[in-house]
Amino acid sequence: MSQLSPIAVDAMGGDKAPEEIVAGARQAFEKHGIPVVLVGDPGKIQDPGELDIIPAMEAIPMDAEPGSSVRKMKDSSLVRAAEAVRDGRASAMVSAGNTGATMASALLRMGRIKGVARPAIATLIPTPGSTSTVFLDAGANAECRPEWLVQFAKMGSVFARLRLNVEQPRVGLLSIGEEPGKGSPFVKEAYEEMSKASWPDSTFLGNVEGRDLMSDQVDVVVTDGFTGNVALKTLEGSLKTLMMALFTALGERPEAAEAAQVLGPELDELYTVFHPDSYGGAMLLGVKGVCIISHGSSSALAIENAIKVASEMVEADVVGNITASVSENL
Amino acid sequence: MSQLSPIAVDAMGGDKAPEEIVAGARQAFEKHGIPVVLVGDPGKIQDPGELDIIPAMEAIPMDAEPGSSVRKMKDSSLVRAAEAVRDGRASAMVSAGNTGATMASALLRMGRIKGVARPAIATLIPTPGSTSTVFLDAGANAECRPEWLVQFAKMGSVFARLRLNVEQPRVGLLSIGEEPGKGSPFVKEAYEEMSKASWPDSTFLGNVEGRDLMSDQVDVVVTDGFTGNVALKTLEGSLKTLMMALFTALGERPEAAEAAQVLGPELDELYTVFHPDSYGGAMLLGVKGVCIISHGSSSALAIENAIKVASEMVEADVVGNITASVSENL
Repeated sequence: MSQLSPIAVDAMGGDKAPEEIVAGARQAFEKHGIPVVLVGDPGKIQDPGELDIIPAMEAIPMDAEPGSSVRKMKDSSLVRAAEAVRDGRASAMVSAGNTGATMASALLRMGRIKGVARPAIATLIPTPGSTSTVFLDAGANAECRPEWLVQFAKMGSVFARLRLNVEQPRVGLLSIGEEPGKGSPFVKEAYEEMSKASWPDSTFLGNVEGRDLMSDQVDVVVTDGFTGNVALKTLEGSLKTLMMALFTALGERPEAAEAAQVLGPELDELYTVFHPDSYGGAMLLGVKGVCIISHGSSSALAIENAIKVASEMVEADVVGNITASVSENL
Repeated sequence: MSQLSPIAVDAMGGDKAPEEIVAGARQAFEKHGIPVVLVGDPGKIQDPGELDIIPAMEAIPMDAEPGSSVRKMKDSSLVRAAEAVRDGRASAMVSAGNTGATMASALLRMGRIKGVARPAIATLIPTPGSTSTVFLDAGANAECRPEWLVQFAKMGSVFARLRLNVEQPRVGLLSIGEEPGKGSPFVKEAYEEMSKASWPDSTFLGNVEGRDLMSDQVDVVVTDGFTGNVALKTLEGSLKTLMMALFTALGERPEAAEAAQVLGPELDELYTVFHPDSYGGAMLLGVKGVCIISHGSSSALAIENAIKVASEMVEADVVGNITASVSENL
């Protein structure tokens, strides 16, 4: 068993909290031996097994305004989880709750890494037959300055190296054409900033397009948090729609349903590859601690995977590596 | 046979020009009786059948800079096609060539509809089991002013009504959260403008998200041309990636390949529903003429469909309807 401090899991956050969250936390401990501590209302956590609980009597609703909730609800599971990381009682936090409030808790309680202008949410985009693409900012900053994207790229490259074992990540700037002159004024400025920056541990490829997100031509794609969130939700929505259309079509004709039975293994694998639960959640990069942001709809499996990723990122010292990478460029 | 002037088809534009383009043009005429005139170099058009040719000895390359190409290459197929519409020798233009140059030709030769600030590209997003979603701007304007989005919505609503028979289109503003306060500063301003506008023939729903593009909850989604192009390419890329992963998976195991054979009709239908060739291309809204912009990779079928859409839009008087809709708000 690992010697790290436990991973703090927000037991109250997510559409299926607390049951599925607690089940996932137990699986991470019981199957993988990862130390976990639950954060939440002990009266509402039915079956924690051997896991300890850090009491927190409030829960920030999924649709609450992030900033004010975090400021007001000091005894919420999210705030207590972030405090546990800050104080060293936990090595990382995992939540499937309100994304904005998760970010705000992490930012306000753990603080930013020195030199980081803004933390960003990095998510993994599946690339069939190849390594996933790191995509950021997936929604932390609806408004960005062009120079922030250079830092997003540095942080994303560290994440690609530690999480996906990509030695020299290839970085692309999301635009609407590959030529340097293409894109909005913001993207053109970001291109200039990225061209001027030094890339000791990664390679700046230039502009990439939306269709490249799922290709093996690029390892890290950076954009502002508005475009990133739109692209991510569009991608998730289209995959879900196509999957549902596929399963619906296969169930309509009796012969088709029979054939679909035979295809069980193939369809299961596709479903797994393209399902967000497989990736273990997004990560908030740039704060002084590991913070994993899981989908609101997370199942026990998603939480189990998120906890695994959290413990790997703690052991790989992602925070120390980002601190070093960002300070090179100060 | 319809009495409309012929549809001018750019025979030289597209990855598969001129062969597939000419084949598609002939199919539209021979199967559907739609009058078509080809525009291009007569020496390079092998087999025009009964179709007339408007000679144009230059062709703007797919990757050429749009503005300067259109200004310099006055005898290009794109410029000649747009002139034919302007002069009444054709009722519409269709091109699978350089998108930027198609827009520039249409804008410079046909001109803007009075009161339209900027033309926008409207594209259709498939919604399985329901009416497609009209999505604009898909890339005409990389930088927009918030108030332009009100006009995009008006034009898109006319398109939804005439093209898809949606009586009272429901309009959404693409953002990263449904609440009015969500999004970039640009989107917040656009939200204000749209809230203040009057909607005699459509309904403004408020913000929608990327995952709603393929849903039946909204008929017209507006955004700036940068975000729109990123979202569209992300959506197309993800559908293509998933389709390819599916077909690859179904070919690997002999039993799976057999079962996949049985599923032929279902898989074919999915492929058709989600393939851009089925929709007949995007349309440039706001210019004084019908201009259909097809995918660069268009097959003969895609061109045939694009010509059908062009003739329907001419007969429905989309230009007159947009003129009326925009003037209501002057």
